[in-house]
Amino acid sequence: MINKNYQKLQGSYLFSETAKRTAAFAQAHPDRSLIRLGIGDVTLPLVPAVQEAMHRAVDEMGKAETFRGYAPEQGYEFLREVIAEKDYRDRGCQIDGDEIFISDGAKCDCGNTQELFSQEVRIAVCDPVYPVYLDTNVMAGRTGDFCRESGRYGDVTYMPCTLENGFLPEIPEKMPELVYLCFPNNPTGSAIRKEELQKWVDAANKSGSVLLYDAAYEAYITEDGIPHSIYECDGARTCAIEFRSFSKNAGFTGVRLGFTVVPSELVRDGVSLRDLWFRRQGTKYNGTPYIVQRAGQAVYAPDGQKQIREQIGYYMKNAAVIREGLLSCGYQASGGVNSPYIWLKTPNGMTSWQFFDLLLEQAGVIGTPGSGFGPSGEGYFRLTAFGSHESTQEAVERIRRM
Amino acid sequence: MINKNYQKLQGSYLFSETAKRTAAFAQAHPDRSLIRLGIGDVTLPLVPAVQEAMHRAVDEMGKAETFRGYAPEQGYEFLREVIAEKDYRDRGCQIDGDEIFISDGAKCDCGNTQELFSQEVRIAVCDPVYPVYLDTNVMAGRTGDFCRESGRYGDVTYMPCTLENGFLPEIPEKMPELVYLCFPNNPTGSAIRKEELQKWVDAANKSGSVLLYDAAYEAYITEDGIPHSIYECDGARTCAIEFRSFSKNAGFTGVRLGFTVVPSELVRDGVSLRDLWFRRQGTKYNGTPYIVQRAGQAVYAPDGQKQIREQIGYYMKNAAVIREGLLSCGYQASGGVNSPYIWLKTPNGMTSWQFFDLLLEQAGVIGTPGSGFGPSGEGYFRLTAFGSHESTQEAVERIRRM
Repeated sequence: MINKNYQKLQGSYLFSETAKRTAAFAQAHPDRSLIRLGIGDVTLPLVPAVQEAMHRAVDEMGKAETFRGYAPEQGYEFLREVIAEKDYRDRGCQIDGDEIFISDGAKCDCGNTQELFSQEVRIAVCDPVYPVYLDTNVMAGRTGDFCRESGRYGDVTYMPCTLENGFLPEIPEKMPELVYLCFPNNPTGSAIRKEELQKWVDAANKSGSVLLYDAAYEAYITEDGIPHSIYECDGARTCAIEFRSFSKNAGFTGVRLGFTVVPSELVRDGVSLRDLWFRRQGTKYNGTPYIVQRAGQAVYAPDGQKQIREQIGYYMKNAAVIREGLLSCGYQASGGVNSPYIWLKTPNGMTSWQFFDLLLEQAGVIGTPGSGFGPSGEGYFRLTAFGSHESTQEAVERIRRM
Repeated sequence: MINKNYQKLQGSYLFSETAKRTAAFAQAHPDRSLIRLGIGDVTLPLVPAVQEAMHRAVDEMGKAETFRGYAPEQGYEFLREVIAEKDYRDRGCQIDGDEIFISDGAKCDCGNTQELFSQEVRIAVCDPVYPVYLDTNVMAGRTGDFCRESGRYGDVTYMPCTLENGFLPEIPEKMPELVYLCFPNNPTGSAIRKEELQKWVDAANKSGSVLLYDAAYEAYITEDGIPHSIYECDGARTCAIEFRSFSKNAGFTGVRLGFTVVPSELVRDGVSLRDLWFRRQGTKYNGTPYIVQRAGQAVYAPDGQKQIREQIGYYMKNAAVIREGLLSCGYQASGGVNSPYIWLKTPNGMTSWQFFDLLLEQAGVIGTPGSGFGPSGEGYFRLTAFGSHESTQEAVERIRRM
């Protein structure tokens, strides 16, 4: 009677195993100081503009005249409209507030979108990949069994992203119905240029595929020519759903806020996917907390913008320190320019886990083995920019001395 | 390529149609004052203890030393432990903090739990019923088509709850694998005595069914002998999942907090449902906001308890006014003693919608037609206790004069 697809899932091995090895090392070497550059969680506190908005909203919720009960399931208009304006229309993307769905984070939205599609559709994912895209489809029965030898589930199109192709997936010859893309990418930190993304949009419009575009890291883009939204590409309104997050740009990992864009022109089998998502959210979701939506609105005000840009600048300074430090020591490292992740090739053909142990033992630095994100991540390693300046500098110095 | 099961769903007709008729009436009669007793949303503001906890939590999130990023996916221990103690162990239920999963509300949890089960299981629901149990199973493909004549989906066991059986469902001769129960009930306002609930637990343990027990309204129970939790029954740990909400007891409809209890002894096909739910939440959910979890903790402190008991008392005074007013006018009315909902039989064989129009036109009072909750709700009508004392009194006076 249970959903047997859950039994296909592989143990959530990656972070539990890194935690286990780290704990064992710490116990054996209580004198060694450890620097954690493995996590994808932020460390800087909420900015003042956000704190003030939340205090005000709590006060409103404490008075009968300004109390708010159930929120509109799609989100308050005050937030949807400012997003449509600042994140989209100001960049030349025609997105309406009615096409934006406020949620408690991109993880939930990325995980839930597959419900709109039949169990028979095939998915394509990058390899390495953020596990949520894949696991939620496994749970829904949309994949075959896991093959230990290949490290892959059956009936899934894997798109390898390696040094050889500059960490950019190749467009499959036969496009599956659903294609998950994430740029700037987690875990590789790579970005995609607009003309390259345009090719995906064109291919999807040709094949009738839907692109599920995760833009959670767009705030870290520093270079020109890198699209912040897939809707910067012509024709994306008829083939793409976009996910956005406040987690990394405004430090909301513990506040929980994100949104999904489903353009009204996105229609499959004669059905509007916007309407399907509206129905899904109306039935299974009960709205994002009022206080959190006010916090999100504050991010778009001038002081909020200034403050979060400073936070992102802080993290990106760390990213530059790691990236340049690694390059100057002779590592092959990428990412860290348009994203907070640095992706390095392990030296001397070491496996990702061998390098994890080496880095832990010789430098006391904790990162994340690339193989944990998929078989094509083997031989790579992820470091993140979310530490403090001091610990990040120190980590790079220790790696230099290895 | 889309999920065709969505097309089986009936339009979310109920509240849009009541809103439409109300708007048309208001436009035609701009001089008439309307009293809304249709909604299930609270109106009193957050209590001081909760406001203070939220302000403190916002301040913590604004300082690097006390900032919190990603929450544990199951919820913070400080909240899970106080729930296990106050809601369960203090009532003699052996529930551990590890069996509690904090979420953003009972609606999501009620809607998502079905994912743990195979597509082939059969469900049973009360009729009338809170639509989420049914609709989420329709969307998952676990039902047949909707039959307009019967008002029912195929392949679902409906359990009528009417005046004749005291609004208590009968245990099906052949128990389906999944049985949704909600006590105190929305929409009928009826409660179940412990010895009656024990029969369901015994039947489920005998058949191997799982009871999905929605206890969102337990805080409104005023009579002895009515269980606040299904775990007050012997053997419930091997057959029941329980859903709880902070929406109605602490006015959190716009704050979003709930939890689900999955006992470790609940095992089907050799698999722990607690572990399955843990995996589901870990993959698809990213934790409830820290600020909201601190707000929930404050509900259990002595001042929080005192303040929310006063709010519930306020609403229950309304419930008594409606119930007693209706009874004294000769209506057949139930509920309102252990729940904030009053359920009345429409007079003279009127349909639910005929009575809606009558009440609107003659009294300017807006309620909810019972037929909107299922075919066995035809000829019934729901009024809610979430208005102000003054408007509730006035509504009853107007009904008396009808």
